[in-house]
Amino acid sequence: MKKISKMVIRRLPRYFRYLSDLKAAGVERISSTELSKKMHVTASQIRHDLNCFGGFGQQGYGYNVEQLHDAIANILGLSRHYKLVIIGAGNLGHALANYAGFVRRGFRLVGMFDVNPDVVGQKVQNVTVRHMEELEEFCKQEKPEIAVLTVSKPAAVEVANRLPALGIRGIWNFSFMELTAPEGVYVENVHLSDSLMTLSQHITASTGK
Amino acid sequence: MKKISKMVIRRLPRYFRYLSDLKAAGVERISSTELSKKMHVTASQIRHDLNCFGGFGQQGYGYNVEQLHDAIANILGLSRHYKLVIIGAGNLGHALANYAGFVRRGFRLVGMFDVNPDVVGQKVQNVTVRHMEELEEFCKQEKPEIAVLTVSKPAAVEVANRLPALGIRGIWNFSFMELTAPEGVYVENVHLSDSLMTLSQHITASTGK
Repeated sequence: MKKISKMVIRRLPRYFRYLSDLKAAGVERISSTELSKKMHVTASQIRHDLNCFGGFGQQGYGYNVEQLHDAIANILGLSRHYKLVIIGAGNLGHALANYAGFVRRGFRLVGMFDVNPDVVGQKVQNVTVRHMEELEEFCKQEKPEIAVLTVSKPAAVEVANRLPALGIRGIWNFSFMELTAPEGVYVENVHLSDSLMTLSQHITASTGK
Repeated sequence: MKKISKMVIRRLPRYFRYLSDLKAAGVERISSTELSKKMHVTASQIRHDLNCFGGFGQQGYGYNVEQLHDAIANILGLSRHYKLVIIGAGNLGHALANYAGFVRRGFRLVGMFDVNPDVVGQKVQNVTVRHMEELEEFCKQEKPEIAVLTVSKPAAVEVANRLPALGIRGIWNFSFMELTAPEGVYVENVHLSDSLMTLSQHITASTGK
């Protein structure tokens, strides 16, 4: 298989979502033209992006949905399981814990942590919220690989710095603080407001106000 | 000012965040080299992206932080105010309602809606959660422009179809259902799991497991 560019990898989750829906609907194959209509991108973009999966797309046949789905899942690291912990059990932490899609894709919530005594001890999805003081001991035993940070901006750096020593390999960061990756850890910074600004840009551009 | 490409517009919110921090810290000017170190992108990417703001970046001087910040705010439509409603008052709805950054950037929560009788009547950020039946009447009076959808996937399409007639101009969609924009409405689909898949891709690629 050819090497896949970073730009294409960024776009793979979206292909994966569409292919999951198609697979669930029992569709066996799809042409780049049909897929392009569904996804609102050009067919040539699709052929370019999926070029490295050449074997699954044949002239006049289209893509074999299941094979393409599985190959993309493989590249996205979804053919194995990940244990994750959520640090910060506020509303966003709860919302993420309740998102069933994670489980379906192999992400298993094993722990939740907070410093707020009102929250510690609560049960969320069969997981009891623990105090942050227990994080080190917990990680030593459970060995989670992913930490979801939903703590406030001021706490984020201090928390993030504790994680590499605990075996955390990836931080999914919702703290509104852009974290620089500590050694050996990959950080995915999520800035929800970025997409809201894209929205306001479109509203303003379309009205000229 | 030259026309700005879609790709550059997608990247503007990130520049805006950095420039907001610099402005708040009292920094008056910054070179593309310094900005590139902070943002972990190449200086040539920055010069390319900000080329259309030519007047604010001068050889040997760098960018005037405040002017560049304000010009980008202007393009992102942040020099005016937007009223927004949140539809779906679950954990994610609450989390978004509590996000102080929205207010600072001109997004004002005016209403929250749900169908769950346990939630209707609750107060979130001085806003009382109303029943979905009141949506039409409320929008007629308050004229919100943005609807934030945090309802479940099955409810999303039905809710989205009610919005254009109510004067909603933009939908910020967290429902995990990729919505096609109804006539005259811009939809920004947020798929939280996409960035989680990017994370798992990195973990897997770096271990080879």
